[in-house]
Amino acid sequence: MRKFDRILIVGGTHGNELTGAYLIRSGAFEHLTQFSFEVLTLLANPRAVAANLRYLGRDLNRSFERQRLDNDRFNNYEDQQAREIYQRFGPHSATPVDVIIDLHTTTANMGNTIILDEESSTGLQLAANLSIAEPSVKIYSTSTSGRQDALRTIAPLGICIEVGPVVPGILDAAAFAQTQALVLQVLADLDRANQGGLADLPESVTLYRYFSTIDYPRNQAGQPIAMIHPQLQLQNYQPLYPGDPIFIDFAGHVTAYMGPETVYPIFINEAAYYEKGIAFVLTQKQQVDCYDQ
Amino acid sequence: MRKFDRILIVGGTHGNELTGAYLIRSGAFEHLTQFSFEVLTLLANPRAVAANLRYLGRDLNRSFERQRLDNDRFNNYEDQQAREIYQRFGPHSATPVDVIIDLHTTTANMGNTIILDEESSTGLQLAANLSIAEPSVKIYSTSTSGRQDALRTIAPLGICIEVGPVVPGILDAAAFAQTQALVLQVLADLDRANQGGLADLPESVTLYRYFSTIDYPRNQAGQPIAMIHPQLQLQNYQPLYPGDPIFIDFAGHVTAYMGPETVYPIFINEAAYYEKGIAFVLTQKQQVDCYDQ
Repeated sequence: MRKFDRILIVGGTHGNELTGAYLIRSGAFEHLTQFSFEVLTLLANPRAVAANLRYLGRDLNRSFERQRLDNDRFNNYEDQQAREIYQRFGPHSATPVDVIIDLHTTTANMGNTIILDEESSTGLQLAANLSIAEPSVKIYSTSTSGRQDALRTIAPLGICIEVGPVVPGILDAAAFAQTQALVLQVLADLDRANQGGLADLPESVTLYRYFSTIDYPRNQAGQPIAMIHPQLQLQNYQPLYPGDPIFIDFAGHVTAYMGPETVYPIFINEAAYYEKGIAFVLTQKQQVDCYDQ
Repeated sequence: MRKFDRILIVGGTHGNELTGAYLIRSGAFEHLTQFSFEVLTLLANPRAVAANLRYLGRDLNRSFERQRLDNDRFNNYEDQQAREIYQRFGPHSATPVDVIIDLHTTTANMGNTIILDEESSTGLQLAANLSIAEPSVKIYSTSTSGRQDALRTIAPLGICIEVGPVVPGILDAAAFAQTQALVLQVLADLDRANQGGLADLPESVTLYRYFSTIDYPRNQAGQPIAMIHPQLQLQNYQPLYPGDPIFIDFAGHVTAYMGPETVYPIFINEAAYYEKGIAFVLTQKQQVDCYDQ
């Protein structure tokens, strides 16, 4: 496992997700001198935090595609922020960071999730270790999603901590404490990795791997014409079987899931995903070996 | 009890409270011909609904003070909307409405609330009747708050239906069904009142009466420096005793409630109230006679 010299903890990538923003603002991760690496912090989208909006011009966490960063014609506030963050912390910086831990919340009833963009052995071992220390933690792998535009992708290892359900624009003390504890656990694990490795890992770990997304039924104006079915609403990470109800329209008509196989929905009814055309994300639940990646 | 000729059901007064907005949009209350009155509907702030924001220029539900309506210098989009709504449905309209039922959601864990601005016998009897049919319903009286700026104040009888917790900007099927059922119950009660009165009312009804508000501790920049304490977070309508924890700061220090008497907080951690300087609203729980107002 490679050595970690600099870890960047990021909050406020989405300006209305106050848990991460206030963890950074409050200095919760400053003066951490007990580790074998430097800990840096960043409030990623301060103007969006001030406005209590997810973003001003465009979603900052969809603004880190390399072609986009290289093209000055993209000139939203978030494009400028992305470029500045890339220059300060990215691979061509004088002091690039080795790991980015980006702090997010979701309105979905997902509990505690670690999102990995790549199924590297380092990432899997860290996630496996974390899910041993914190059994509530689920591991979601987006390696099959094709997305390469998240802030955390500018570091060799990107880890997203996603806690929910949390209402946008509020301070939630339980989510604050939970996120803080998860970050400190990840830092301790990264430190142990630096000191010689993570011991006592399981042979394999349960991953929820990105499969596809399902949008709301909509009318020609793009407005949703149905809602998440109450039986699905809170059931993130639970099996969805063919024939299970997924939507109910305003007159009470039910739509069933018609896929060929059992899937595991997450981000069910995430408020920020209405505009992205996502009612929920389908994952497949799989066991993955921790060592053979 | 006076006769009701026209009832106006309003949704989307706050553009990101989608339950009411989509109840109106979906036509759930159109073609209701079984009643002894006419039922009208209104999507009050269509541009805010389209933008998925509470409001564009100012809170529409704080824009109905008569002096404000009469002064053309107030010219936000919501001021214009308020004037138009007042002219269409208010007391000087050719066909003024007798009752306004305004549909709201809150991010607070409040369940189902009926808000009355005045403790008239008509309002109390309707609320009492509703809380018999729907025992989950709490009655919140703002008669002591001094507020006279809500949309529903332009009718002789204003009823606000407030359901929570609901995340702003999402469609929540359970809240949708619950709100729809409450509206239909209120309409049935108004109809019974028209037919000769509400029978079998209790002698008295439990009111939660506005007492005061408490703001977050803030720094000089106006930013909150503490969060609702987890022990208070979900406890709307529960007694808060002197000495109970109310806030916890980012380092874990706790602030206790230091008031002289037991109170009943509501709207705890409502997202839209951060900007209004309200962490929660204190009420007093009181028994009020239904007949002697």
